[in-house]
Amino acid sequence: MNRRQFGGLIAATATVGPAGLAVADDKKPQAGEDKFPVMHNGRRPEIGMLLYPGMTLMDLLGPQTVLSTSCNVHLVWKNTELIESDSGVILKPTGKLGDCPKDLDVLFVGGGPGQLAVMSDPEVLKFMADRGARAKYVTSVCTGSLILGAAGLLRGYKATSHWAFHDALALFGATPVTARVVTDRNRISGGGVTAGIDFGLTLLAKMLGDDMAKMTQLALEYDPQPPFDAGTPKKAGKEIIKKMEEWVGPFGGKMTASCVAAAKVMGEYTPEKK
Amino acid sequence: MNRRQFGGLIAATATVGPAGLAVADDKKPQAGEDKFPVMHNGRRPEIGMLLYPGMTLMDLLGPQTVLSTSCNVHLVWKNTELIESDSGVILKPTGKLGDCPKDLDVLFVGGGPGQLAVMSDPEVLKFMADRGARAKYVTSVCTGSLILGAAGLLRGYKATSHWAFHDALALFGATPVTARVVTDRNRISGGGVTAGIDFGLTLLAKMLGDDMAKMTQLALEYDPQPPFDAGTPKKAGKEIIKKMEEWVGPFGGKMTASCVAAAKVMGEYTPEKK
Repeated sequence: MNRRQFGGLIAATATVGPAGLAVADDKKPQAGEDKFPVMHNGRRPEIGMLLYPGMTLMDLLGPQTVLSTSCNVHLVWKNTELIESDSGVILKPTGKLGDCPKDLDVLFVGGGPGQLAVMSDPEVLKFMADRGARAKYVTSVCTGSLILGAAGLLRGYKATSHWAFHDALALFGATPVTARVVTDRNRISGGGVTAGIDFGLTLLAKMLGDDMAKMTQLALEYDPQPPFDAGTPKKAGKEIIKKMEEWVGPFGGKMTASCVAAAKVMGEYTPEKK
Repeated sequence: MNRRQFGGLIAATATVGPAGLAVADDKKPQAGEDKFPVMHNGRRPEIGMLLYPGMTLMDLLGPQTVLSTSCNVHLVWKNTELIESDSGVILKPTGKLGDCPKDLDVLFVGGGPGQLAVMSDPEVLKFMADRGARAKYVTSVCTGSLILGAAGLLRGYKATSHWAFHDALALFGATPVTARVVTDRNRISGGGVTAGIDFGLTLLAKMLGDDMAKMTQLALEYDPQPPFDAGTPKKAGKEIIKKMEEWVGPFGGKMTASCVAAAKVMGEYTPEKK
């Protein structure tokens, strides 16, 4: 998982092996790899990201793409069977929860309809609370912050979420903030879905410096030019919101009910309560 | 693959089945699904997207996320074995090349270091040329345009690519254009990696109207706020480009060589040459 992504893209040094899996031309550190400062005396940061069935893959892939070139990223779930994202992408975790390093630089979780099951799953919440208690940064994108909340990791912290679910953060003792990326001590949360790219670059700069973040932004040609200006409820306007509600049904519903239920048992899984 | 993604996220109606795969609460059309205009007398657009080992998943996931709520997306490769993206995400295609509908609304391909093998693979180029000859839109993000070129699909068209590889487009008879999204008749190409979100919204608006694109933008909270302004070589500046070259080595290399080789046999796989 340590492949140097945009090294591969830009220099095009990767080839495809007989097993059909992409492999680097050689396994030795490539040109310049050890020239760039990395945190903790040359160690690549360890990133633990939670996969789950029904996740919104884009929540995770923004930061995963940004971080994977310079960090070791672990994509973990309860087992390593295939899972399906909410948009129909079929994925295989790189390891089980127990395979994730115990002392992480970053614990990350994104959102998605599958989180209704995750927020009432003791095994997963216990994992999140355990790794979150020791991780250097405890992070989320979109409604992933509600999973952090359910694991008791946002009590007394400011945080953000997808715009439609801000209020639910308060159920977990967090203070909802409307912003693209919210940092409160070592908790960093991003807004809905596409905020993961902005979140990822913000986090990367904190860990490995502004220049590394800028090089990554350049490699990913992240110079956004949306063809419309409808990315927030205010900018989209009442007519678009009304059409959207007509199309997908009223917002909230089961997600809020799941948060209420999860908040009732919040803290059961935190290390200090064991 | 027809799951209504942000219907799932916003209304949170999805549950997780015993097999570990996300399933919708019911299989019937959900509220409002048939109220919204779709092209071709109520038919959902058919989107064929090429997966391959060593692809840059973000190139594809931007448009896949944007389109999957309102279109049928097919993620196809030569076989349905697991493949690994260049950033280490393990994926399973939803079908083989032959499973992809013959008459597509959209043919799409993204870039990545694995394309060096793809651009010299007769089976894949023949598939691209065949579907491209009949698709309503022939599209790409990042260096995916060079795969379109290798399949003979960009001769006489304007197109774009990742900033580091613009020049290679000319090898395939295309005219390189520096822009986030380039439309020339039914060819639509996006710039590097993250341009896929802008590309996807542009394409969605063409197919299903501006309101559908705006609702999707709102659902994905696509209101980008990059923490730095370094998304193009000009904006990043010479110092960052120099550091990046020191880190990943000189740009181009094998990619250009592969394009030169592919250009020599370009056209062998197009339907009119058969």
